[in-house]
This record gives sequence, C-alpha cells and structure tokens, in this order.
Amino acid sequence: MAKRNVTVTMKADYEYEAVNPQGNKVMIDMYDADKKQAQSPMDLVLSAVASCASVDAVQMMKKKRKTVEAFQVETEGDRNDGVPAFYTSIHMKFILTSPDATEEEFAKVIKLSVDKYCSVSASLSAEISYSSEVKRP
Amino acid sequence: MAKRNVTVTMKADYEYEAVNPQGNKVMIDMYDADKKQAQSPMDLVLSAVASCASVDAVQMMKKKRKTVEAFQVETEGDRNDGVPAFYTSIHMKFILTSPDATEEEFAKVIKLSVDKYCSVSASLSAEISYSSEVKRP
Repeated sequence: MAKRNVTVTMKADYEYEAVNPQGNKVMIDMYDADKKQAQSPMDLVLSAVASCASVDAVQMMKKKRKTVEAFQVETEGDRNDGVPAFYTSIHMKFILTSPDATEEEFAKVIKLSVDKYCSVSASLSAEISYSSEVKRP
Repeated sequence: MAKRNVTVTMKADYEYEAVNPQGNKVMIDMYDADKKQAQSPMDLVLSAVASCASVDAVQMMKKKRKTVEAFQVETEGDRNDGVPAFYTSIHMKFILTSPDATEEEFAKVIKLSVDKYCSVSASLSAEISYSSEVKRP
C-alpha cells in the first residue's frame, strides 16, 4: 500500500511549516486576511484538489494531440456554518486556452479527471461539482 | 456561509501554482522523488489536516497556561491500491515539548482539536487516527 508522509512543525502561534520526505516545504498560516503571508489549511485543501484534477486533464488533452496554451482552475468551497467548518461543497471551473480543443472533448476529459483519477477529490467528503470552458488564444 | 477561493494555474506539464485571494502562493508538482521541488496534491492534504488540528491544540494548551516550547505532527496517510488512490486512513502523531504539560491534558486537547474543531479532518472521508506525546525539553 502506497504511503505519504508529512511532518508539520509550529513556527509561531499561527504559523506552521509542512515538509515531506523529499524536503519540499509549504508554509501555512491562520492569520486574518490583512496579516496573511501563507495559505490556510482550508486554502490548501482547494489547492490540492484543483491541482490533482488538473494534471490528469492536461496529460489527457496532450495525448489527444491538442495544444494546451494555458490551463487554470477557479475553485470555490462552501463551508459549514457551525464548528467544524468543513467543506459542504466545492466547485471547480476548468479553463483551457487552446487553438484546437473543443468544449465537448475537454468536458469529457475533465469528467474523467475529477470523477475517476483524482485521488484528492476521492479523499474528500464534500460534494464536488465542476464546469469547463475552452478559450481561443 | 463562509467561502474559500483558490485559483490554480499550470506552470509546466507537472507543475502548478495555487493562489488565494490574498495572493498567498503554493507551488505544487507531481514529479517523482528525485525531481521533486514542491509538495504533491496528496502531500498538501496531509499538510492541511495536520496544521489545522495543530493550531487549535496549541491555543488550548496556552489557555491552560502551559508552556509550548515546540510542537510537531508526524503525519502518515495510507492510499487505496487502485485508481483513484484516495486516502483510506491518516494517522497523526502529535509531539509537544513542554516543561509543565501532562500527557493526559495534552491527549484531551488533541482529541478536541481533531474530532471537534478541525475543519480539514471533517472535510475528509478517510478514517483519521491520532496519538500524542509530551517531551520534556
């Protein structure tokens, strides 16, 4: 069974550093917007799910010999009003800039990426929805 | 309802950048260990859950007027063998270095942090277990 390991260390009251076995570090803080220098834990969850779904989508478009000029995901999560404030739903909007891809094939690839391949979305209990769009460069 | 937003942008085939509305960036890559420069999406999930549980635990120990000299979480996730390779279980080991905290009160605080307050653990479908330890400095 594949494993992942991360060690999280407190740097200050609301500041943490996470490091994986390869030494790759992520800074995390829980400050309010005006003091923030790093993503919060709940920001990281969205960063994880969107990047995870993206990598498979991009590779699948390239296998179809489509040009990927740019690729972006706008991701929004709605949180429970109580405590804990878990994500009740997450929406991802995938935007591909390509001269030769069609909306239809991109939508199919996104569906496969999110529903079938993405390990992060499969690890979450939130309802996950998505939409997609192809832009001409 | 509280919302969180993150935009994820492709920088190269296996490299992504995630940014929140405050402009805080996290680099993410999906390279193998020898080429890695950033955490993977599944690394970020562990970084998020451990830091989320930590911040409340540290604040609760401080409210009890205990000295927090150091605080660390060793986090391990077991992944499904198939596709998607979601987390089937995550274990966190919380290690507090303190001259005046007891194992018992720390264990209670950790239980509250993980089970009651942490928004990330409540967003995950993996079975989450934890243990704790107090070290004398």
